[in-house]
Amino acid sequence: MSATSADRRSILVVAGIGDGSGTGASTARLFAKNGYRVAVISRFAEATHKLAEEITADGGEAAAFPVKTYTHGELQSIFSAIKNQWKDSDIRVALFNVAVLSRKPFLEITEDDIDESMKTNIVAGFAFARESILAFKDLPLLNGQKKGTLIFTGATASVRGNKTTSAFSAGKQGLRALSQSLAKEFGPQDIHVAHSIIDGAIFTKVSTGRRLDDPDWAANPARRLEPDSIAKSYLYLTGQDRSSWTWELDLRPAHENW
Amino acid sequence: MSATSADRRSILVVAGIGDGSGTGASTARLFAKNGYRVAVISRFAEATHKLAEEITADGGEAAAFPVKTYTHGELQSIFSAIKNQWKDSDIRVALFNVAVLSRKPFLEITEDDIDESMKTNIVAGFAFARESILAFKDLPLLNGQKKGTLIFTGATASVRGNKTTSAFSAGKQGLRALSQSLAKEFGPQDIHVAHSIIDGAIFTKVSTGRRLDDPDWAANPARRLEPDSIAKSYLYLTGQDRSSWTWELDLRPAHENW
Amino acid sequence: MSATSADRRSILVVAGIGDGSGTGASTARLFAKNGYRVAVISRFAEATHKLAEEITADGGEAAAFPVKTYTHGELQSIFSAIKNQWKDSDIRVALFNVAVLSRKPFLEITEDDIDESMKTNIVAGFAFARESILAFKDLPLLNGQKKGTLIFTGATASVRGNKTTSAFSAGKQGLRALSQSLAKEFGPQDIHVAHSIIDGAIFTKVSTGRRLDDPDWAANPARRLEPDSIAKSYLYLTGQDRSSWTWELDLRPAHENW
Amino acid sequence: MSATSADRRSILVVAGIGDGSGTGASTARLFAKNGYRVAVISRFAEATHKLAEEITADGGEAAAFPVKTYTHGELQSIFSAIKNQWKDSDIRVALFNVAVLSRKPFLEITEDDIDESMKTNIVAGFAFARESILAFKDLPLLNGQKKGTLIFTGATASVRGNKTTSAFSAGKQGLRALSQSLAKEFGPQDIHVAHSIIDGAIFTKVSTGRRLDDPDWAANPARRLEPDSIAKSYLYLTGQDRSSWTWELDLRPAHENW
Repeated sequence: MSATSADRRSILVVAGIGDGSGTGASTARLFAKNGYRVAVISRFAEATHKLAEEITADGGEAAAFPVKTYTHGELQSIFSAIKNQWKDSDIRVALFNVAVLSRKPFLEITEDDIDESMKTNIVAGFAFARESILAFKDLPLLNGQKKGTLIFTGATASVRGNKTTSAFSAGKQGLRALSQSLAKEFGPQDIHVAHSIIDGAIFTKVSTGRRLDDPDWAANPARRLEPDSIAKSYLYLTGQDRSSWTWELDLRPAHENW
Repeated sequence: MSATSADRRSILVVAGIGDGSGTGASTARLFAKNGYRVAVISRFAEATHKLAEEITADGGEAAAFPVKTYTHGELQSIFSAIKNQWKDSDIRVALFNVAVLSRKPFLEITEDDIDESMKTNIVAGFAFARESILAFKDLPLLNGQKKGTLIFTGATASVRGNKTTSAFSAGKQGLRALSQSLAKEFGPQDIHVAHSIIDGAIFTKVSTGRRLDDPDWAANPARRLEPDSIAKSYLYLTGQDRSSWTWELDLRPAHENW
Repeated sequence: MSATSADRRSILVVAGIGDGSGTGASTARLFAKNGYRVAVISRFAEATHKLAEEITADGGEAAAFPVKTYTHGELQSIFSAIKNQWKDSDIRVALFNVAVLSRKPFLEITEDDIDESMKTNIVAGFAFARESILAFKDLPLLNGQKKGTLIFTGATASVRGNKTTSAFSAGKQGLRALSQSLAKEFGPQDIHVAHSIIDGAIFTKVSTGRRLDDPDWAANPARRLEPDSIAKSYLYLTGQDRSSWTWELDLRPAHENW
Repeated sequence: MSATSADRRSILVVAGIGDGSGTGASTARLFAKNGYRVAVISRFAEATHKLAEEITADGGEAAAFPVKTYTHGELQSIFSAIKNQWKDSDIRVALFNVAVLSRKPFLEITEDDIDESMKTNIVAGFAFARESILAFKDLPLLNGQKKGTLIFTGATASVRGNKTTSAFSAGKQGLRALSQSLAKEFGPQDIHVAHSIIDGAIFTKVSTGRRLDDPDWAANPARRLEPDSIAKSYLYLTGQDRSSWTWELDLRPAHENW
């Protein structure tokens, strides 16, 4: 899907960029290179500003929208601010890439862990979906295809609960359920909702830091997911024409054991 | 699994009985008839007391534990109270039958709806699971088979998000993820965790009230689930020996279209 | 479900008993003890006769129906023979427990392996299902619940293809698809179709022989499935009333890692 | 993935093109435009030649390989012939798009129906996969990414058995099991195996002919899948780099009810 329609530009809103080296940041960069204005939302203010500046320095257009928590209220304000920022543009793609991962034996999981998983993995997804769909719903079809595309980043835990992942998996399966409900409800309303299952470790600063004793891991793209490659899948999903929309795809490194 | 071991009786804890005409209440009655002492937890104080009295009048033993909300704190107090109530008995079976169902187009779902779904469908399940597992974990095997059985009642929405069920389905899929994680973690610790998928309408006062114009529905057991029959499946699961435990089974009326 | 209705006895037909120490044989014995006449079908003539004799010696009633291959023609003849054997009885339960398991790297799989997997795991299931449903369909409801119960034994491979299981998994997933289609089509016609997922190793002579160096495996029921326990689950499924039928349940040892 | 590597061209092998208006044919055309030489295999000799000629007339390169049945022997000969046809090229992409669909109440399904479903939907898939993997396995990585890509076209029935689809669904679920096993086994060997779930009706001559009374269906791409659009998803899958391979994606029209 071309990023422009007549004289209006398209905006990508990304929520969740971690330290700026993962999926959210790669998606921001890739869409910026493809002509999108990019609004970056994240709880990490410094990384948010840094990413927006980097994209701008690279010839793209981006703005930082740091957030304290992903509540309905905060997201509503931010989406308003995004629309104000670029009045000649429309929000056309929204990526919910927020997640809080925890691995703990069940009896060590605290009330706060559960609360955080619910709020960040699920409730934030509902709030972000609401603002995205409200932003899309009165727009004309872009290039005759769709009003907008809403993508959720999932994980192995989105389809399988494991021994130490009950809090995380409850959050991710809840989010996946939301994405499926939305895909069914809003497809007929010309809004494309998709969900990825990232079934492996993503190559980020953090994940690399954890594997300093295994330099092949960082060197070998067949063993971990490149954020830039995940971003390409999101660009592909965004460009699917209305005759063939994907709700869900899995993504894993070539050499993954699964 | 026999309800007694040497000289100690077994206790069933049921959370969630609605108006006293559904799955939770039927399970309470059936297990009482099978020799269990029954602790009834519910947000509906009157129905809770009524069910406990009814079971007692019928020759069983039951106690009512009304709850305001299913928080970790409240459930911890209630499980303590249950143990105090019957010091010569052990909690051996726990049924989480709590759910809050809503069906709304996505844009009509409020923050409160989402919050309630998270709290009641998922967080309450975590809190109830915690107390149940803590109650089971230091017990000896009952009849050489298991320390205890923890059952979660699921629904169609536990495996499929649909157009108007995003809040409900996010809650139920989150709960199912929890149950799967627990089954994997605690099976090796001799605690049996199971999950049912109730794939159809249960025959209760409420569901019958909604179908007054279709008297065949109430008259025809092939069209809706009898709570007593669901209860039998829970008794069967409880009795499975340690060589063959079921995590998940589906249950639907013979004539259901699916 | 009681095994008698008025003055007619019920017949269980079991196809697939291997060496007589597994699920099929245990089911035959258990149902015989519960008043069923039992027809044993198997490709292993000697084991078939031995099992029938053993059940008879034990006070039950059984007849052996050795089969060369599970073709439509052979199964049609055998079902006729079963009806002739016990004219005052009705076939009410049918268990398809036939399987041929192979584990091979894909490039070592031969055309014969694939052909055998198709014929034994799937086509035989179609033929057996056809005869079972034809036997059930004109019967009155037994005890007001169902005309008959048709059960398929599945495996881990029924829901997951793995590295060396392509031939086996293609067969078992094909069979599971059949069972689901049948459950949907024949539930409304009062015939109950169920499918088990046996997610672990069954305790048989063969499986024990493979683990002679691990005596705990044979000694510890938490590590492997007892055929008698699987049989109990089939008796439970058979007895489900028409308000709550299970299509699928999984079964695994308490200590299984999954 | 670029269709050329140094001085060797890439070949796409497509099996299954029906009447030349569906997914297989669109994939052949699209890959030809992207620089692939295209080998077309099909049971419909006339359509096979016509498609090859059409692609050639359009400036591409294609050759027709009509087949009587998709046996191991025939496919082995054809893959040899393809390699002989273009000795300076390598088979790099293989699409198994063969299927035989039937919808019949279970008791009307004949032995031949089952046999044909097994042979065409599953056994042919095994044979095609074998030749494809043998063709790929000794090649160098193309562009450093993969030796080859093997794609299977699936359907709704690949994940769900329905009332009248037992023969078809058994075939498609068996094929999906194969594809999953292959993805797990051959990913670590640098061969990418993918499976699509086409969850809706494809816009072909045949499907249009069935809906002559509903002209909107043909006119409205949001109601049915364009073969050209499915083909694009296959080109996308082929181009995924080795850090992020998709095994499965679903595709459905925007306005599909699911």
